[in-house]
Amino acid sequence: MTPYERRTRACQDRLSTLDAAAVVCAPGANLRYLTGVDESPSERHFLCVVPADGDPVFLVPELSGTDIEETTWIDDVQVWSDDEDPTAALDSVLDDCDLGPGRVLLDGTMHARFVLDVQRLLDGRECGLAEEAIGPLRARKDEAELDALRRAGSVADAVMAGLREDAASLVGRSESELAREIERRLADAGGEGVSFEPIVAAGSNGAKPHHGHGDRVIREGDPVVLDFGTRVDGYPSDTTRTLVLAGDPPEGFETVHDVVREAQEAAIDAVEPGVEARAVDRAARAVVEEAGYGERFVHRTGHGVGLDVHEEPYLSTESETTLEPGMVFSVEPGVYLDGRFGVRIEDLVVVTDDGPERLNDSPRGWRVDG
Amino acid sequence: MTPYERRTRACQDRLSTLDAAAVVCAPGANLRYLTGVDESPSERHFLCVVPADGDPVFLVPELSGTDIEETTWIDDVQVWSDDEDPTAALDSVLDDCDLGPGRVLLDGTMHARFVLDVQRLLDGRECGLAEEAIGPLRARKDEAELDALRRAGSVADAVMAGLREDAASLVGRSESELAREIERRLADAGGEGVSFEPIVAAGSNGAKPHHGHGDRVIREGDPVVLDFGTRVDGYPSDTTRTLVLAGDPPEGFETVHDVVREAQEAAIDAVEPGVEARAVDRAARAVVEEAGYGERFVHRTGHGVGLDVHEEPYLSTESETTLEPGMVFSVEPGVYLDGRFGVRIEDLVVVTDDGPERLNDSPRGWRVDG
Repeated sequence: MTPYERRTRACQDRLSTLDAAAVVCAPGANLRYLTGVDESPSERHFLCVVPADGDPVFLVPELSGTDIEETTWIDDVQVWSDDEDPTAALDSVLDDCDLGPGRVLLDGTMHARFVLDVQRLLDGRECGLAEEAIGPLRARKDEAELDALRRAGSVADAVMAGLREDAASLVGRSESELAREIERRLADAGGEGVSFEPIVAAGSNGAKPHHGHGDRVIREGDPVVLDFGTRVDGYPSDTTRTLVLAGDPPEGFETVHDVVREAQEAAIDAVEPGVEARAVDRAARAVVEEAGYGERFVHRTGHGVGLDVHEEPYLSTESETTLEPGMVFSVEPGVYLDGRFGVRIEDLVVVTDDGPERLNDSPRGWRVDG
Repeated sequence: MTPYERRTRACQDRLSTLDAAAVVCAPGANLRYLTGVDESPSERHFLCVVPADGDPVFLVPELSGTDIEETTWIDDVQVWSDDEDPTAALDSVLDDCDLGPGRVLLDGTMHARFVLDVQRLLDGRECGLAEEAIGPLRARKDEAELDALRRAGSVADAVMAGLREDAASLVGRSESELAREIERRLADAGGEGVSFEPIVAAGSNGAKPHHGHGDRVIREGDPVVLDFGTRVDGYPSDTTRTLVLAGDPPEGFETVHDVVREAQEAAIDAVEPGVEARAVDRAARAVVEEAGYGERFVHRTGHGVGLDVHEEPYLSTESETTLEPGMVFSVEPGVYLDGRFGVRIEDLVVVTDDGPERLNDSPRGWRVDG
């Protein structure tokens, strides 16, 4: 049995405990996790029905049929051509699956055009999200997944180290130029593209937590939030450092950086099996609140990382997840001072029986020499 | 009134003729088209409700709030923070919109996790797809859109020309190496990333229409299907040539290439306002069938291109669209001979009052000198 088939069988076992008749996957991380098929969402019907009992069935566009048959362990790959009605083809696949009673769980990233189609064919049957069945499986990484995550982390660390070395030559470039430079370096260091559009946020742009990058030129004394990652074997890295590439930082920056760094340490120290995810969030938040910046820490402390760069478990004040060995997530407290600067420090962490294992070990200081 | 507001008001006008109470957009092309907000889908609730009457309302994560307020003409931007329940926030936004009777049209690319949420809050109200309202608006490009598409086409053409010039030095590289080289050249020529993962399909891989790229090394005499594009101001290019980089092509290749080229010419010649999209498909298919390869032309003749690289109108045997000035689509017949090679030739075309205008004018021959 391939690892993919083993995962699918585990998913089917969960379906019976969830009063669910089937999972329907669309292109994305769940599909890749269960079948090995790495496909981008498109406007064409491309679905995999996994019934609680029996074997899964693929429905794919004719022009992908051969590729999919060669890629996946699933035998039943049905195709529809551009001159056929895909909804009729889907109807026949659902018939073939002979679903039992219970809800049908739809891939959380399935596009509405397919959701409405499936719902119409299921004639009012209650729908839920596939993550109920697959999420807990995906949350605990196996050794091969951890190995890929470790290698992706090393690639990002090497690029961050290179940016420190070349810091003086990066002053005077725009944020977007530096973002493209980071992309090139990630590829040169062995990464597969970027795991998300890099964030290069200089000076007051750093106070916007989700600023991407723009025309602003990086000047001496600008704190620069650098948040990026790549992929290895499909698994991402995601790390953030806040650096001052040259010159002296603005008034108050050092204090804030110390607070964020201490908050990150406190959160990571709190990681161990059996601990609630919100306790890790709390540990970071307590440090930031104590220093008087609680209101300026405007996001959750972290997110799970796997085939999706944001997935379960989330580390937020509301999270009800209990940490288990094999879970991987970011720990990334931040403080954002409107119109002035922002500071964020982020590493990925694995929960092990012995406590936290960091997947990033590049220096965390704001000075370019560490 | 900004162009974005004008588009939104036109969308609202259409809602009343469609028995629809609102459109709900998620991150993607529809949202960008109506609001100017260019956001990637994520796991966080990020939605814009456009009621048939009154003003639109955004619901976005707190950490995006400032950015969105600065980007869009829409005044009402509501935020939710990571320690709040986004479903409750969405419920209150829907209340504020005070929807009239009728269906609610959901963005076709909205993820299922948000679709199920909206449906639950709407308590059984019938849902349709936002494309019903927005699709016909997006299909007719305005001058600014055409200008961006023309420039994106020129960038792709320049890169294709460069590949012909450097053909001899590209033999011996793997498909994936050449794909990355193409990405670099598109960026160097002024493109914004790639509009889709480039296709570099050598030899028998060319017979798989949606082969991406892999480890196969390009050898002398291999026909190579090269299908790529970039973006300019958010609008994509998408062009394909089938080249033999060095050496002599396999038996039968020249004949097939002639057929595909003739089919593409015939299809483009058929383009004018008032013609049905399927007549353009038919024109290409007739040439291929006449030559005896009808069964090996396994996909539609083309797809509309705009903020999405695949959008209305589609040129298929079943399409019921009538061509109008300002519509832009690919014309890309192909013939695929299993285990041997494939040939595809693709240009983007605009419908004008005077007939077709091509957005690509690089040579179409298979020899590297044109």
